[in-house]
Amino acid sequence: MRTQDMLSKHSDPSDQLDKVVALVNSAFACEQCCTSCADACLAEDSDMDLTACIRTNLDCADVCATTGRVLSRQTQPNDAILRAQLQACVAACDACADECEEHADMHEHCRVCMECCRECADACRALLDAMPQGATA
Amino acid sequence: MRTQDMLSKHSDPSDQLDKVVALVNSAFACEQCCTSCADACLAEDSDMDLTACIRTNLDCADVCATTGRVLSRQTQPNDAILRAQLQACVAACDACADECEEHADMHEHCRVCMECCRECADACRALLDAMPQGATA
Amino acid sequence: MRTQDMLSKHSDPSDQLDKVVALVNSAFACEQCCTSCADACLAEDSDMDLTACIRTNLDCADVCATTGRVLSRQTQPNDAILRAQLQACVAACDACADECEEHADMHEHCRVCMECCRECADACRALLDAMPQGATA
Amino acid sequence: MRTQDMLSKHSDPSDQLDKVVALVNSAFACEQCCTSCADACLAEDSDMDLTACIRTNLDCADVCATTGRVLSRQTQPNDAILRAQLQACVAACDACADECEEHADMHEHCRVCMECCRECADACRALLDAMPQGATA
Repeated sequence: MRTQDMLSKHSDPSDQLDKVVALVNSAFACEQCCTSCADACLAEDSDMDLTACIRTNLDCADVCATTGRVLSRQTQPNDAILRAQLQACVAACDACADECEEHADMHEHCRVCMECCRECADACRALLDAMPQGATA
Repeated sequence: MRTQDMLSKHSDPSDQLDKVVALVNSAFACEQCCTSCADACLAEDSDMDLTACIRTNLDCADVCATTGRVLSRQTQPNDAILRAQLQACVAACDACADECEEHADMHEHCRVCMECCRECADACRALLDAMPQGATA
Repeated sequence: MRTQDMLSKHSDPSDQLDKVVALVNSAFACEQCCTSCADACLAEDSDMDLTACIRTNLDCADVCATTGRVLSRQTQPNDAILRAQLQACVAACDACADECEEHADMHEHCRVCMECCRECADACRALLDAMPQGATA
Repeated sequence: MRTQDMLSKHSDPSDQLDKVVALVNSAFACEQCCTSCADACLAEDSDMDLTACIRTNLDCADVCATTGRVLSRQTQPNDAILRAQLQACVAACDACADECEEHADMHEHCRVCMECCRECADACRALLDAMPQGATA
């Protein structure tokens, strides 16, 4: 990812650039992890029921994809959109991490995906805390 | 769109099926409108500055895309994710409708896009109101 | 979908407007069908192995989403991108329709999804045939 | 990105794992670069007309997003879909790199984005060459 390089070359970069870069990187990494985890779960011949894990992975991948895109944009931002999208991302990553944690001992992909989701949720919270009105998530 | 047909054939369809179908249709329609409006604004040789309109359109298209997908899923839903995604969609559609309204007299694509965004925001609110704990957006 | 309305309001609309509108509508409808079909398959307690169907549905949803967005844009189009994207969409829709057809007698959602995929593949081919150099898919 | 970690934990990983990992990382990085470049172009008060660059960036971001997701999946792959998606990605990345190159001297974000697009196109070609029937792009 060249996110730091790209975002710093904008004519009016965010005054929270480091936190935005960390969040964008975490969001795309989490989209990738969740897409892989859903796919790996689908291929498991497991005694455990991975249905809820797959569904939550698919949701979390979609939410993280949108978070990565929306936060990549720095032109004329709308705080209400940014804040609501970060809160949606916290909700998806928290739920997906909790779900993957249930299977982390049995399936290594669930353990790595749990870690990705925790990192992304933390990056969202760090950015929400740094925004003008503070975090409400 | 065959959303009604598809969602009703799930083995355990939502008990808010009509509202979910209306929302899913509105979300994909709004993604399309916002994608078109950003593109049409980009091609305008306008006296008005459409920069904020394009940026908000791009965000709203991404948020609506994720809303359309997440709400299309009915298997083992997570209420916290659904609620937060619907609230993010309300924020994006409200902001985009307000932005398009500024140019609705001058640019027909902004007027139609404003209507799409209002419809999608209303469909989100109707579904949030019908969910167990009620809407908080 | 207000695709016809939106695309016709561009300052320089496509000279294949009807075919583009049909394709964009088919692509977003197919994304929705494939997302729903993957989700409905995931919830089935079926004697049939739906693993390949779910995976193909997920791929086809992603490819159709990109097709719907790329073809919604009319500003300064690049024919090589449009053509390659339409061909990728034909490949995904053909494969997904064939896969769903295997389960169409057993699962109604697979039957409807098969029809969506066939329609979208046909709309892609119609547009490829109407483009300057003709279709090669 | 933890792509290597995630993909290697699948129960039946690709026999081209290194090339797939490289491609998936390049595709998500390119989606991020193109999203940023479109946004940075939108904010430029440039003497150059960046309209075609923005449009191509938006297309390339969407195509790369789908490539990153489709190639992240290893369960029951369909070669026709993979091949066509990689070819669409080559077309989008080649066109976007050429477009960004026009502005690389003037705008640093276009220079970095050009490099991202070239890397992603190369990673697509390397994987196409390693697939059973060889590359045709």
